[in-house]
Amino acid sequence: MIFFNCDYNEGAHERIIKRLVETNLEQTTGYGEDDYCRQAAEMILEKCELPEGQVHFLVGGTQTNLTVIAAGLKPWQGVISADTGHINCHETGAIEATGHKVLALPGRNGKLKGDQIREVVKAHREDGSHEHMVQPGMVYISNPTEIGTIYHQKSLEDLYNACQECGLYLYIDGARMGYGLMARDNDLTLPFIARHCDAFTLGGTKQGALFGEAVIITNPALGKDFRYLIKQRGGMLAKGRLLGIQFQELMKDDLYFELSAHANAMAMKIRSTLVDLGIPMPIGSTTNQQFAVFTDSELGRLAGKYSFSYWERVDASHSMVRICTSWATREEDVDALIKDIRREK
Amino acid sequence: MIFFNCDYNEGAHERIIKRLVETNLEQTTGYGEDDYCRQAAEMILEKCELPEGQVHFLVGGTQTNLTVIAAGLKPWQGVISADTGHINCHETGAIEATGHKVLALPGRNGKLKGDQIREVVKAHREDGSHEHMVQPGMVYISNPTEIGTIYHQKSLEDLYNACQECGLYLYIDGARMGYGLMARDNDLTLPFIARHCDAFTLGGTKQGALFGEAVIITNPALGKDFRYLIKQRGGMLAKGRLLGIQFQELMKDDLYFELSAHANAMAMKIRSTLVDLGIPMPIGSTTNQQFAVFTDSELGRLAGKYSFSYWERVDASHSMVRICTSWATREEDVDALIKDIRREK
Amino acid sequence: MIFFNCDYNEGAHERIIKRLVETNLEQTTGYGEDDYCRQAAEMILEKCELPEGQVHFLVGGTQTNLTVIAAGLKPWQGVISADTGHINCHETGAIEATGHKVLALPGRNGKLKGDQIREVVKAHREDGSHEHMVQPGMVYISNPTEIGTIYHQKSLEDLYNACQECGLYLYIDGARMGYGLMARDNDLTLPFIARHCDAFTLGGTKQGALFGEAVIITNPALGKDFRYLIKQRGGMLAKGRLLGIQFQELMKDDLYFELSAHANAMAMKIRSTLVDLGIPMPIGSTTNQQFAVFTDSELGRLAGKYSFSYWERVDASHSMVRICTSWATREEDVDALIKDIRREK
Amino acid sequence: MIFFNCDYNEGAHERIIKRLVETNLEQTTGYGEDDYCRQAAEMILEKCELPEGQVHFLVGGTQTNLTVIAAGLKPWQGVISADTGHINCHETGAIEATGHKVLALPGRNGKLKGDQIREVVKAHREDGSHEHMVQPGMVYISNPTEIGTIYHQKSLEDLYNACQECGLYLYIDGARMGYGLMARDNDLTLPFIARHCDAFTLGGTKQGALFGEAVIITNPALGKDFRYLIKQRGGMLAKGRLLGIQFQELMKDDLYFELSAHANAMAMKIRSTLVDLGIPMPIGSTTNQQFAVFTDSELGRLAGKYSFSYWERVDASHSMVRICTSWATREEDVDALIKDIRREK
Repeated sequence: MIFFNCDYNEGAHERIIKRLVETNLEQTTGYGEDDYCRQAAEMILEKCELPEGQVHFLVGGTQTNLTVIAAGLKPWQGVISADTGHINCHETGAIEATGHKVLALPGRNGKLKGDQIREVVKAHREDGSHEHMVQPGMVYISNPTEIGTIYHQKSLEDLYNACQECGLYLYIDGARMGYGLMARDNDLTLPFIARHCDAFTLGGTKQGALFGEAVIITNPALGKDFRYLIKQRGGMLAKGRLLGIQFQELMKDDLYFELSAHANAMAMKIRSTLVDLGIPMPIGSTTNQQFAVFTDSELGRLAGKYSFSYWERVDASHSMVRICTSWATREEDVDALIKDIRREK
Repeated sequence: MIFFNCDYNEGAHERIIKRLVETNLEQTTGYGEDDYCRQAAEMILEKCELPEGQVHFLVGGTQTNLTVIAAGLKPWQGVISADTGHINCHETGAIEATGHKVLALPGRNGKLKGDQIREVVKAHREDGSHEHMVQPGMVYISNPTEIGTIYHQKSLEDLYNACQECGLYLYIDGARMGYGLMARDNDLTLPFIARHCDAFTLGGTKQGALFGEAVIITNPALGKDFRYLIKQRGGMLAKGRLLGIQFQELMKDDLYFELSAHANAMAMKIRSTLVDLGIPMPIGSTTNQQFAVFTDSELGRLAGKYSFSYWERVDASHSMVRICTSWATREEDVDALIKDIRREK
Repeated sequence: MIFFNCDYNEGAHERIIKRLVETNLEQTTGYGEDDYCRQAAEMILEKCELPEGQVHFLVGGTQTNLTVIAAGLKPWQGVISADTGHINCHETGAIEATGHKVLALPGRNGKLKGDQIREVVKAHREDGSHEHMVQPGMVYISNPTEIGTIYHQKSLEDLYNACQECGLYLYIDGARMGYGLMARDNDLTLPFIARHCDAFTLGGTKQGALFGEAVIITNPALGKDFRYLIKQRGGMLAKGRLLGIQFQELMKDDLYFELSAHANAMAMKIRSTLVDLGIPMPIGSTTNQQFAVFTDSELGRLAGKYSFSYWERVDASHSMVRICTSWATREEDVDALIKDIRREK
Repeated sequence: MIFFNCDYNEGAHERIIKRLVETNLEQTTGYGEDDYCRQAAEMILEKCELPEGQVHFLVGGTQTNLTVIAAGLKPWQGVISADTGHINCHETGAIEATGHKVLALPGRNGKLKGDQIREVVKAHREDGSHEHMVQPGMVYISNPTEIGTIYHQKSLEDLYNACQECGLYLYIDGARMGYGLMARDNDLTLPFIARHCDAFTLGGTKQGALFGEAVIITNPALGKDFRYLIKQRGGMLAKGRLLGIQFQELMKDDLYFELSAHANAMAMKIRSTLVDLGIPMPIGSTTNQQFAVFTDSELGRLAGKYSFSYWERVDASHSMVRICTSWATREEDVDALIKDIRREK
């Protein structure tokens, strides 16, 4: 079975493994206060042109999201998210478990627009009994989104401006940020992102590390005493250096971006084949997640050899699946898949 | 200014006031463990034909909802509600503040149907990664709904059956229960309700009391140690007898229902006039809340004399308002309103 | 049975009842936005010489405490309290249910001292792994304390200075504030209190009202968007004017203080008798709560006629009870009690 | 600098590293549903003679504690812990952040006794207003304790019996369980532990793994839908196999216990030297944490070469430090330390 179902099937890139082995018996301070974490943070901040920013390393994405969001909200505030947002769908109510409502808005290709934020905030403030409703306090987006689409400079700027006008934090979940930044139609850069949000993450788990998410906080108000919250919510790794070492290696020689570029190339190779074959791909993704509609019989035959992620039923005889590549995807597996799909048609 | 904006503008019915005055200097045990509370509970249970049920008296509706729902859910569970449900819209995220997601479904006239519940639960269970999503644990409905519509025996039974099949609690917010039970097309009774849910409330605040909600728990599993939670969430009134005395009086000679019938009669008098006049009333309410669409100029003129509750903008020149009667509504005020509306047309 | 067990056995003072009756059928805006609340707030602020302060009216004490404390703390902060503090003992973990630890310090006569606060904060900050421990964010005291003792200008100033130095909020639970302010050895005044804390309450429930606690917020940072939190935690009374009317009447002609003085006088009459009789009274209370140690046989005989509040077992044949007077205590009942106690000795 | 300050300074045992390298590029299902996790769970259950038990793998200890405790408590319940318990002191209020009070009892050598539990529960139930207080719902202990002491069959049985009598869950935090089980005076076994609690953990982080805690749930009531809570609280590792692989290797050939035995041997070597030298060691620990009282000048000189964990100030010229060995401690470092301490004396 060849897995195209997600981007966290393998361990880590060999360079990361090598560094973990080399440093294994060193004795270092715990809880992320070691030199590896410090150096990795500096490398990230340099790439972001953000000398005064904070970087924290956490293990997983849900943990990261709930920690950042809880840090930024007052008890009576909620976080705005696209309805397809990970925090709204696939984190078992982790945000609500911290006491905050997720205010879901209809996403447009998985994305939010500035005017949607303005409307929500305006409606909230103008309502005579606004204190009977959750106060918006933050906007959560993911880039790339959960369906592989990306923000551009214009759309991110538009959203950030709206957040600034309305007094909301903007937080970008970058669990797959590298795949977004290496997309062929991307015009975002790390410094641009850093200037257009209050916090964002660079995900490691899905992009070459064994695990790990780097949280970059650009707004000091959001970062005050942040380590307390990491610890309280269970996100502080005892041997924190494991995160520092991994991110250091990912940042070195831009390994992170190189791996992302590979995954995207593999994804686009699959995409162009499917488009050629006339297989419907309703979502305009240019990153490592591709969404294709197959007939039941096609899927049935492919399922013997390949694992995809089931997405949704489309009609009586068709379903949409997610085909996901990663830093670890082998081109020979992609070629085999393409060949088998061609045979189906 | 005559207020038709809501049903809690006045104090309490004179019989209640009288009893509060008569009992004022008695010394009783606190926290709802007095004889008045005991007797009121017995009267309610008798009317519900529910000798083994529990009755608890709380002060307000949001408090009541958050306490009952927190009592019934496991930490990873959420409560299903119509999108128009009070807990989803107008309680400032009170449910989320207890750690639970409100799973909003599209209401149909403010109501939920059994099949909607079955679909949600089925989809949840069939999803391969269901533990990544909030587990439905309870269904919340209100009767009458927030838009004045009511459930009938058939629709409540359908919903309760679905809840039973799926292992979910059914909780009915009866903040305006009396108005529902006295609606001309109602076929529900207290015993029927008691047999078709796990907990429900009889609201006092909007129906003749100074304040107070009676929680009737029919499922002992939901009621275990319930008083701890009332206390913890701030809902245990020191002079609890104030609630017992009021509900005792409301239950006596069916005052509660008599007051509700009056409010409904006043509402239907307004409704039939508006219907006669061709004023759009898009919501088929037979209870004390009526929803009418006026032109801006009509509303402008009426606003000098009457207070309504603004509901929503309908088009460039029309808005919908809620006209609300109550146990305290004076027929002369209704007649004045009708006369003025007729003059507008 | 004559109740000396607590100070909330009766309803409300007759003047309050009279005003509730008089205003009963008036129509007012809900949720505390009516003129009665506004006027009551102004009267309180005037007495506090605090023109810019905020006043909010809530129904009960636990509700009030959890709302104020949740408003003031970051998610990783806790509230310092004497070990005998109400929030630490008798609120069913209401503070913890909002996510915050109560950091209990050994009380000295139920009170805290500035140096205790400084030590805790110093120890916290100096600890190399302070982010592994709860950060102190607020100090909670009650005046009078849960055992009837009071703070004086010097001790309150000392505590507030420590809080200011350490960057902590100081919140004073004044559920029995009137009894404290009318104690014979009291030197606090409302303006002094208002200048030496960030928020405090004037309790109504135990001091002549049917129910109600007035929260006075002197530090705007603590009061921002406070009404959202009141609503979310279930503390916003629909017919909020009931609270305004009661506090207006309590403030008028200083009824509040007159009632408190009466209760204290009754308490001191009992105290001086017990002291005369050599009955141990280990706690130096000058307010309406008195603590006396009786033999089992004495208690056994008194228990047929009087209800006290059991406090603790002292030794094999003695127990301490709380004898509580209130605004409603009748002197004839006090005299009867004194006579019966004398007979026992 | 040689670190004796804690037991998580290094990475992982070489056998674990080797397995992580070998399996690195395998594709497996995520979130702990892979074969490695399944096999590791089976190995653990077999050692525990607990065929029907559940095993879950989490990354860190605070995360594990908050998840297990939140799973077992009703909203109004608290968890009993020794005052020195990790959850009471060093987890930044993680338990309170889930809404539950930690009910701290005075530990005796860091341990609790059955009678302490019985007394607390009895006092709670007998109190007339018990619903005004937090209801005990679980007992938390650690073995070895935070100060290196251990439970024996008799003391654990005594405690579990008390919990059973009182209807409380017993949860054992075994972050250093191996060190406890290999202590020279230990008589506990995994099957005995499994039969005398409702859940316990086998810690990996401090005992040879890169990270990881295995939660063994012996009481199915506590384990129902446990994976939902792991996910919600951020504890579900995407590449869950990393945990399975590590625990599989630790269990194989009893590596886990072999490593623990080594650490204990190193600790006892240090201990016997210090005892010989008459250096006070107030805590009778037989595991890898040893507590010694040095003079300031002794500490000053040792500090140039060795890192200890500062524990507390003893008097004007002495402090107690923790000397901690681990699976990774080299005997040559121990010998150097011993030599240097001898020189000091």
